[in-house]
Amino acid sequence: MKLLVKNAWILTMNEKMEQFQNGYMLVDGNTISEVGGMDSLPEDIRYDQCIDARGAILIPGMVNTHTHIGMIPFRSLGDDYPDRLHRFLFPLENECMNEQLAYTSGRYAIAEMQLAGVTTFFDMYYFEQQLAIAAEEMHGRAILAETVLDSITVDVEEPMGGLQYAERFMPKWQGHDRIHASIAPHAPYSTTIEVLQQADALSQKYHVPWMIHVSEMEFEMKKFREERNQTPIEFLAEIGVLSPRLVAVHCIHLSDHDIELLKKYDVKVAHCIGANTKSAKGVARIQDLLAAGVEVGLGTDGPSSGNTLDLFAQMRLFGNFHKTFLQDRSAFPAREIVRLATLGGARVLGLQEQIGSIEAGKQADFILVETDSVNMFPIFDPYSALVYSAHAGNVRDVFIAGKQVVAEKKLVHFELAQLRQELIQAIQDCGFKRKALKAL
Amino acid sequence: MKLLVKNAWILTMNEKMEQFQNGYMLVDGNTISEVGGMDSLPEDIRYDQCIDARGAILIPGMVNTHTHIGMIPFRSLGDDYPDRLHRFLFPLENECMNEQLAYTSGRYAIAEMQLAGVTTFFDMYYFEQQLAIAAEEMHGRAILAETVLDSITVDVEEPMGGLQYAERFMPKWQGHDRIHASIAPHAPYSTTIEVLQQADALSQKYHVPWMIHVSEMEFEMKKFREERNQTPIEFLAEIGVLSPRLVAVHCIHLSDHDIELLKKYDVKVAHCIGANTKSAKGVARIQDLLAAGVEVGLGTDGPSSGNTLDLFAQMRLFGNFHKTFLQDRSAFPAREIVRLATLGGARVLGLQEQIGSIEAGKQADFILVETDSVNMFPIFDPYSALVYSAHAGNVRDVFIAGKQVVAEKKLVHFELAQLRQELIQAIQDCGFKRKALKAL
Repeated sequence: MKLLVKNAWILTMNEKMEQFQNGYMLVDGNTISEVGGMDSLPEDIRYDQCIDARGAILIPGMVNTHTHIGMIPFRSLGDDYPDRLHRFLFPLENECMNEQLAYTSGRYAIAEMQLAGVTTFFDMYYFEQQLAIAAEEMHGRAILAETVLDSITVDVEEPMGGLQYAERFMPKWQGHDRIHASIAPHAPYSTTIEVLQQADALSQKYHVPWMIHVSEMEFEMKKFREERNQTPIEFLAEIGVLSPRLVAVHCIHLSDHDIELLKKYDVKVAHCIGANTKSAKGVARIQDLLAAGVEVGLGTDGPSSGNTLDLFAQMRLFGNFHKTFLQDRSAFPAREIVRLATLGGARVLGLQEQIGSIEAGKQADFILVETDSVNMFPIFDPYSALVYSAHAGNVRDVFIAGKQVVAEKKLVHFELAQLRQELIQAIQDCGFKRKALKAL
Repeated sequence: MKLLVKNAWILTMNEKMEQFQNGYMLVDGNTISEVGGMDSLPEDIRYDQCIDARGAILIPGMVNTHTHIGMIPFRSLGDDYPDRLHRFLFPLENECMNEQLAYTSGRYAIAEMQLAGVTTFFDMYYFEQQLAIAAEEMHGRAILAETVLDSITVDVEEPMGGLQYAERFMPKWQGHDRIHASIAPHAPYSTTIEVLQQADALSQKYHVPWMIHVSEMEFEMKKFREERNQTPIEFLAEIGVLSPRLVAVHCIHLSDHDIELLKKYDVKVAHCIGANTKSAKGVARIQDLLAAGVEVGLGTDGPSSGNTLDLFAQMRLFGNFHKTFLQDRSAFPAREIVRLATLGGARVLGLQEQIGSIEAGKQADFILVETDSVNMFPIFDPYSALVYSAHAGNVRDVFIAGKQVVAEKKLVHFELAQLRQELIQAIQDCGFKRKALKAL
């Protein structure tokens, strides 16, 4: 099965940042086989299907490096409360979250991401086996990491039970081409040294990245300073778990020494600008990280923290926040921001050999962003258009491993209304809505 | 002609911030005549047309308090250049901007705003007579203000010629119910005391607000400090032009005394968070202004500064930036941000008796934001959904003075493709594109 995409404004995101303003791409099965300008399209090219991009911008599928896809039910609940974690999230999660709610939420969240051009994500939540099944069913590309926490959680019967869950879960998805199973200790302050070291060992054993929230909270920084006279990153270095397989999420509060350590051990960083700033936590030192050579990707965090799962909102916030914090309007040109949302994310997940750019030999994960809508004209700089003008609603077509999952802004293999109805049913069955409204 | 809107989640934005989760609204001609819950809908209600909102959120049409609608051709041109004003904007404006380009750009920009739920705007540019005609043709509600600047500009033959332009322009639109003509001295540093005083006098004579960029630039602050030992706001107070009719745009750099002066003279503030932060200029002290009792509205600035003309992007940036700068996640609850985008803007423009809330007797300027799209579920807080989940593409229907201008996400009386084609033609005719690409 060969697919030809023609008349696309292709931003390859390859090393030379090549673009073809009027370009074509040939896909053979799940793999990109040719990319070039329409003027070099071979006359005798053979294909089974042809998509006319009609001037749409073609970029690699976007990579969301930090999600909690089981949390769709929490969206818009208690956004402006200072104590929302303890007032809404933890009690409702404990009382209501179950396998069916996580699964239906996961399907809905994956639909939301695909409709917004996110083709790969790295998730941290509970019931990750169900979420892996959801991702498999919806032809997603994902790493699903089971949370480990020092309390009894919704899918385990004792504190740190996520570790045993992960030990059973991780071998199940070995060898799958798109779905990978992993482990995610919640944070350095909410797990143990043993758990952190075992997570690192499991990650090494199964050749997958693992992730952890780190250097996110003021109290976290204070606790490590007071108890160990260290930063959380220094603590992780000391116990020997920093490695190229670790994705450090948030990293809002970093010292120069932390940045040196992250670089030394080639740790990756998932940067969630929307969630970090909506919760008034601060702006991570991304320019310094990149200058030091640390790989950075963008993440949305959960739908109760970032409210949407698309990277367009994140790219816009990224540009405005980092320019303002650096007091430099020329900092982070738009193409650098698009790079973080695509190839940057792929590198963070260790998937840069498979995805992240439009190059022959890579997996055919790509999206078309239409330029017909009113906000998408004129376009002197397509990167600028993606970062500062586009929104998730401009995503027209989405392909993962050569298979089309979104066509003309609609899911191809699922009905959104039905996914929503399944989720509504699960929300009702567990009493979530009633209890949420009571807590408000 | 009576229109019934039923099954809408109505956020009235009235003084009590009443909402009807399942509500109806009756419109008689250009005026709202009834608002209430579906359970109180009179059985014998009579109407000529009925719209089933199907759960969409109904809010007042949004008010964009600062635009440059003639500048669509500049979108995405040189966004990340430190010297873009002098490298791209000024030379291209001087060489290419003409009546036809401003007019076709204005029509396109008004379409963009209407499709995004902006029903009223306050513009500052050149050729404002043509822009007023564009707004009139497209059934917009607007105040169009001719720029006055101390150099020869594209529509006048001598420095400060905008003053004479405005003197001719302003009487032409007297008595129009939706279109108002005004004057906009560019900035305190780029005009004269005489011009500022005459602008104030014209504003008083014709009962319209006027506007000026103020306390926006570092060099501006420095200049006034060095030359007069004053802030720009203190200077405007001294020359007697602060009044309730003045809309002070940007106000990024304000002293406590400036805020006192703005309150004392009831000056209004147009806050352009997106443009201000993309250009790394800073974050205005909006919480302090509101605490002092100063009226504030939201603005996008021009499409080359803010890139889009919708207030959804602005609301999202507003929440994240102000929470982060105040280090308080509970600062500016979402409903306060929606208030700024609607009633706040109406008050800034002095139009609060006509628009800005859904109340009997007010003009029927309202929008429906659909909740069918994937990003709009669940909704525990509709204000949160509008600020943190919605994008311009979620706007379904738009009415201005009882007349529908957008239906099911499409313009009712115009073809977007044709508006774009007219603009492309004007861009080609004046050589804009060729010169822009040469400058890049």
